[in-house]
Amino acid sequence: MAPVKNGRPLTQVEFQRYEGNCDLLLLWLPASEMTGKGTILVTGGAGYVGSHTVLELLNNNYSVIALDNLVNCYAEKNDKPESLKRVEKLTGKQIIFYNVDIRDKTSLDKIFKVHSIDFVIHFAALKAVGESVQIPLTYYQNNIAGSSTLFEVMQSNGVKKIVFSSSATVYGIPQFLPITEEHPTGQGCTNPYGKTKYFVEEILKDVCVSDHEWKVILLRYFNPVGAHESGEIGEDPSGIPNNLMPYIAQVAVGRREKVYVFGNDYPTPDGTGVRDYIHITDLAIGHVQALTKLNDTTFFGWKAFNLGTGRGYSVLDVINAFSKASGKIIKHEFVNRREGDVAASFADASLAKIELNWTATRGIDEMCKDTWNWQSKNPNGFKKK
Amino acid sequence: MAPVKNGRPLTQVEFQRYEGNCDLLLLWLPASEMTGKGTILVTGGAGYVGSHTVLELLNNNYSVIALDNLVNCYAEKNDKPESLKRVEKLTGKQIIFYNVDIRDKTSLDKIFKVHSIDFVIHFAALKAVGESVQIPLTYYQNNIAGSSTLFEVMQSNGVKKIVFSSSATVYGIPQFLPITEEHPTGQGCTNPYGKTKYFVEEILKDVCVSDHEWKVILLRYFNPVGAHESGEIGEDPSGIPNNLMPYIAQVAVGRREKVYVFGNDYPTPDGTGVRDYIHITDLAIGHVQALTKLNDTTFFGWKAFNLGTGRGYSVLDVINAFSKASGKIIKHEFVNRREGDVAASFADASLAKIELNWTATRGIDEMCKDTWNWQSKNPNGFKKK
Repeated sequence: MAPVKNGRPLTQVEFQRYEGNCDLLLLWLPASEMTGKGTILVTGGAGYVGSHTVLELLNNNYSVIALDNLVNCYAEKNDKPESLKRVEKLTGKQIIFYNVDIRDKTSLDKIFKVHSIDFVIHFAALKAVGESVQIPLTYYQNNIAGSSTLFEVMQSNGVKKIVFSSSATVYGIPQFLPITEEHPTGQGCTNPYGKTKYFVEEILKDVCVSDHEWKVILLRYFNPVGAHESGEIGEDPSGIPNNLMPYIAQVAVGRREKVYVFGNDYPTPDGTGVRDYIHITDLAIGHVQALTKLNDTTFFGWKAFNLGTGRGYSVLDVINAFSKASGKIIKHEFVNRREGDVAASFADASLAKIELNWTATRGIDEMCKDTWNWQSKNPNGFKKK
Repeated sequence: MAPVKNGRPLTQVEFQRYEGNCDLLLLWLPASEMTGKGTILVTGGAGYVGSHTVLELLNNNYSVIALDNLVNCYAEKNDKPESLKRVEKLTGKQIIFYNVDIRDKTSLDKIFKVHSIDFVIHFAALKAVGESVQIPLTYYQNNIAGSSTLFEVMQSNGVKKIVFSSSATVYGIPQFLPITEEHPTGQGCTNPYGKTKYFVEEILKDVCVSDHEWKVILLRYFNPVGAHESGEIGEDPSGIPNNLMPYIAQVAVGRREKVYVFGNDYPTPDGTGVRDYIHITDLAIGHVQALTKLNDTTFFGWKAFNLGTGRGYSVLDVINAFSKASGKIIKHEFVNRREGDVAASFADASLAKIELNWTATRGIDEMCKDTWNWQSKNPNGFKKK
């Protein structure tokens, strides 16, 4: 299959570039695929949020170039990550994939030179809060130095539209509820992971000040859970899950004995911590809506949007809903509070409704049902065994 | 001259390492030099604060390995930076110098492998506030990614004692005066330069949490001015000076017409901005005192210290003092305030007095006299012409 660029054969110069980069390229799209609304480079495209977003992008007629360093996802040797292979099956469309680390400036630059990239959606990051406390420098190198390298390559190649995968963790301990985008950020971020999200937001804001052609959307996720309704893709944490829902799912499927509930003496209705959970498909659609905003010719600079449902559920609510969805008894045990945890946190998601025309439509029952569907179909995640 | 390590010939393994790195090495010290209190790696050692600190370190019987990427200092081709050559003359001692960028992990690692480094004093950074607004990514790459790379190399080589060159800019707009080390940091840092200082402080704090063997001293400078009393080394800004004192000095020496004073309607005694200026020699001695603190076996983790005089001078105070010291009329013109400037900022420097046994002893007249001595002896800085 001859390489093409946006539906046409490569020019001679492009082909020379391509020939010099054979090691980098896993797959070229046939000409028919490189059409549609535009080409999106998705960093961290093989991960949980990345793969679900790639799926929605393809369904919305965008072309996707995904890159990932594969440290947190499963792939057979010399093959695409399993998550993206399944997305290709689900959508019937192809994805260009590069096994590249965002700290590798040379390879990044080659990708921008060979392809006509319209937008970047930047997920690539390490994301385990506890691990970030243990090995902070690794987090700063991956998340800060890596992001900064990506932005430099974007700048030098004239690609200045980006959606950044941020987090409600930038708000630190909530000073008021529900949390609006006006809430102060960066105060009381207690772990390196959270700080890297805050720092990257600040870097992007400074980039917008330095060059008024940049358009930046910061999406601050609350607690992404669930899986695609097909059960073909979902969250596949390596090791012990850091988050509640995959932990519960592994208890339900018999991989773990019981759920440890950190604190039952919070000032909440049932004493357990309350969070704003958001279905991964709703979250993914939020990114598609953000691209539409980036195409708005009156929008420049940066803007942050909360992606949440605006409603909180307690740990016990989630356990009960999951039990109902799975038909399994979920054993749990109350243990001490975790340092740094807050009683309650939930979004004011009205700005995304007004400006992105986006609202989360999937509730807690659907979140649990889809998680269970994924987990029971794939008890060991993407690995075949 | 055969290479040596801490006063003895290299072992065979060290010599093999050395042979593989000839390109990196400009000079090896004779055995007699590698004695004393310990070996300090000084990053950014050829710069303004760096070179003055190297001088005080040598005078205090430390061995110095300086590295610098030379982007902001003058050196003849294939020679040491002029500032450090003059420090060698002043002290009669030799400095090992590497032309290395802190983002170059491989070269950094070689330096740590070949030498027995006891402490690091980390100055290397870009430092022009205005430029940082124009090219933020360059600042984040140099100052954040570079620092993080340096810390990784330190960690992997077991060198865990560092003095970091921070700034009062981390305090943002002062919430109270005088500013103590308890003042909040990171709020209202309005430019990328200031944010990089704040971020690196946070990274070092997280490193201390992750590994309790680290000892970190953050020195928050107020406004370093002046020059060594010899007039042989001093501040040598490239282009238009960003700071008041070198600007005044260039007016006095006839390189510029007049001083622009940004705002004369501040709520200060004469309406111009008040700052805490500190003589560069006092500042340099502060670093030597910080090393003593790092040797204190009861000290672990991180601690921040203000380095200032604790007393503020207005822009007009400085102009008048400089006029007196130089015998020149310094023309000035009042123009609008600069965005982000505050009326007054000065340190509470009592913590450094108590814990570092350090106090600034040089006043405004000495600061101006020494600046003038340097400037009039070296009207074009370190360049011969």
